[in-house]
Amino acid sequence: MEPPALKIRIQLYCGAEIAMGPGKADLLDAIADHGSISAAARTMGMSYRRAWLLVDVMNRCWQNPLVETTPGSAHGGGARVTAFGDTVLRQYRNLQNELGTAAHGKSYSSLSAAMLDEPKASQKK
Amino acid sequence: MEPPALKIRIQLYCGAEIAMGPGKADLLDAIADHGSISAAARTMGMSYRRAWLLVDVMNRCWQNPLVETTPGSAHGGGARVTAFGDTVLRQYRNLQNELGTAAHGKSYSSLSAAMLDEPKASQKK
Repeated sequence: MEPPALKIRIQLYCGAEIAMGPGKADLLDAIADHGSISAAARTMGMSYRRAWLLVDVMNRCWQNPLVETTPGSAHGGGARVTAFGDTVLRQYRNLQNELGTAAHGKSYSSLSAAMLDEPKASQKK
Repeated sequence: MEPPALKIRIQLYCGAEIAMGPGKADLLDAIADHGSISAAARTMGMSYRRAWLLVDVMNRCWQNPLVETTPGSAHGGGARVTAFGDTVLRQYRNLQNELGTAAHGKSYSSLSAAMLDEPKASQKK
């Protein structure tokens, strides 16, 4: 049982901000599942503040908001992924799948063949 | 003048270690250019120790060493990228180019069209 040998991180930039990337996509999934930013943050092991900031960046980088919140008690009320957000997320997942498939060609095969299954022990003292 | 809208990071894992990724590939290029780990580290704005550790990981993750060092004074003598290392680097760059090309399809076009050129101002207080 070894971890996946190839990891591809796709980041979409809006100016200097990351409009969409692996962490933000997972956060959208978690918000869709749990219906609030605080519950999504908890599931992902991140602070409410960090999750809120990621949502804020996403909502400022696209033509429409990806997440809508409803006012509530401490740490916000409910939150949901908008239809627009759902479309963006689906296209990002498509892009991940497309690149995951595209990656497994000749260059990757050569690299895989040249790599060890596990690192050798370090020589460092 | 805006930064590239799409950034793809490809990481190849050997067990739990990253055998090759954007930073390690750039370090190999710098070692090839400068002929020593310390000069390469300086160019990249990283400590000698960090560069040495990255080289150590690379040399432990592949069937042959990617970098060879020759003993010298403080902070090592010379270093060079081996023929094997050069091949691994070239295949990694090929993989980057292949995915860069593959990325610019339908999903990316839809995402680009839905993204703003610059983020809107934050609402946060």
